[in-house]
Amino acid sequence: MDNRPIGVFDSGLGGLTVLKALKIALPNENFIYVGDTARVPYGNKSRKKIKQYSDQISKWLIAQDCKMVVVACNTASAIALESLRMKFSIPIIGVINSGVRRAIHLSQNSHIAVLATAATIKSDEYGKQLKALNSQIIIKNIACPLFVPLVEEGLTNDHLSLSVIKMYLKSLKNSKFDTVILGCTHYPLLKDPIQNILGDKVKLVDSGNAIVKEVEEFLMENNLMSKISQGIFHCFVTDEPESFDKIAERFLQTKLVGTSHIELF
Amino acid sequence: MDNRPIGVFDSGLGGLTVLKALKIALPNENFIYVGDTARVPYGNKSRKKIKQYSDQISKWLIAQDCKMVVVACNTASAIALESLRMKFSIPIIGVINSGVRRAIHLSQNSHIAVLATAATIKSDEYGKQLKALNSQIIIKNIACPLFVPLVEEGLTNDHLSLSVIKMYLKSLKNSKFDTVILGCTHYPLLKDPIQNILGDKVKLVDSGNAIVKEVEEFLMENNLMSKISQGIFHCFVTDEPESFDKIAERFLQTKLVGTSHIELF
Repeated sequence: MDNRPIGVFDSGLGGLTVLKALKIALPNENFIYVGDTARVPYGNKSRKKIKQYSDQISKWLIAQDCKMVVVACNTASAIALESLRMKFSIPIIGVINSGVRRAIHLSQNSHIAVLATAATIKSDEYGKQLKALNSQIIIKNIACPLFVPLVEEGLTNDHLSLSVIKMYLKSLKNSKFDTVILGCTHYPLLKDPIQNILGDKVKLVDSGNAIVKEVEEFLMENNLMSKISQGIFHCFVTDEPESFDKIAERFLQTKLVGTSHIELF
Repeated sequence: MDNRPIGVFDSGLGGLTVLKALKIALPNENFIYVGDTARVPYGNKSRKKIKQYSDQISKWLIAQDCKMVVVACNTASAIALESLRMKFSIPIIGVINSGVRRAIHLSQNSHIAVLATAATIKSDEYGKQLKALNSQIIIKNIACPLFVPLVEEGLTNDHLSLSVIKMYLKSLKNSKFDTVILGCTHYPLLKDPIQNILGDKVKLVDSGNAIVKEVEEFLMENNLMSKISQGIFHCFVTDEPESFDKIAERFLQTKLVGTSHIELF
């Protein structure tokens, strides 16, 4: 039994889709969410910066007495997870591994495509982890840098988002790829139009949802479940909290009050 | 006479369009360019952060013995210019004022539209400065947050960029607005499709180009022109310099070597 909070972080607010899924599955847990809104996005930054930023946030979450850290950001998971685990002694779980295991479970012909930010695709972390579990797998990596700005503009299901999705997914249409990983926390908000374009037979993997089961199992196995009756959550951002609340409500689909500011160096 | 360099800064690499125009007009000047690539973009950050980042960069440029600072970033000019001028004693010039004066000079019916980032539009700095020079002016502010990611994806003249431009400029089509300010250093790379959509009669103001004349006049009037035969320039970025060189060449249309890294706090 461990009533300490679970730390969840992302480059901005995309990770709130992960927080939402975790809150539903684990209602007794307390959560602390950090969105690095002063430096968002991570997808176009260097490996060195992504590691440095992830390091600063993890250090801060550990100082808040978190029992574990969930790296909700795909870019940070792809690039920083290993170095975070080497540096810090508390359990740290990233979205990539969960997405990989779910995709391998779902695919029937071992043809898996990965949609992600430029930095995640460049790292080829999904590819490496898929190959590690099944060396025969055929992988297609597709960087989709316009998806995040589209979602943040609220353009998730109109003719413009359809054009952008069609442009990036051209090579998947009528292809053998039967499973597609949505390798960025913003992408599930484009799930419907992506599904429409690829057709119902293609399975979409939301790596944010996939992590929930992994966190649950980890807490159970290690006897770290919280025993309080109703968990609470608190959001912290590195830029001003006001504008965060508004867009965050679109992600969380719940009223958000009292986001606080933190300064990280 | 003053051979010290001119400091130019931007949130990322968009300001290179300004540097390019300055280099052509003032070949004897030395330039130091700073792109804050570790925290780009500024357009979705808060006023407080934009001021803090602009402050750190200006302090660094002054420490490099610059004779003046050009704020090439529209967002930083809109939000931080006044506080920078209060804090530092060297001359600091921003792109907004130059763009405003050029637009007023060009418009024949005092109907001026401003295209810019969310933060610049929210500040209404173009609107305030236009009104200060001509209180009768009719202004339309349009935030175009997808323009920067489109340009950075290299999608400057295809069906997708046309769709995005049409979406944002719908209200300008067949309107009375005869002058449109491109209020972000990335936007001149979309000049051709914007002109095509609005028609030849509409005048586009590139605020980056407009600042060149202002810098030139300022140096002349204050006897600050450099007298060396051939100026040089050096670029500094807050993220890793490697990836910067590649995209920067698209902006500068010249080979770029030896960009250096700086760490700002």
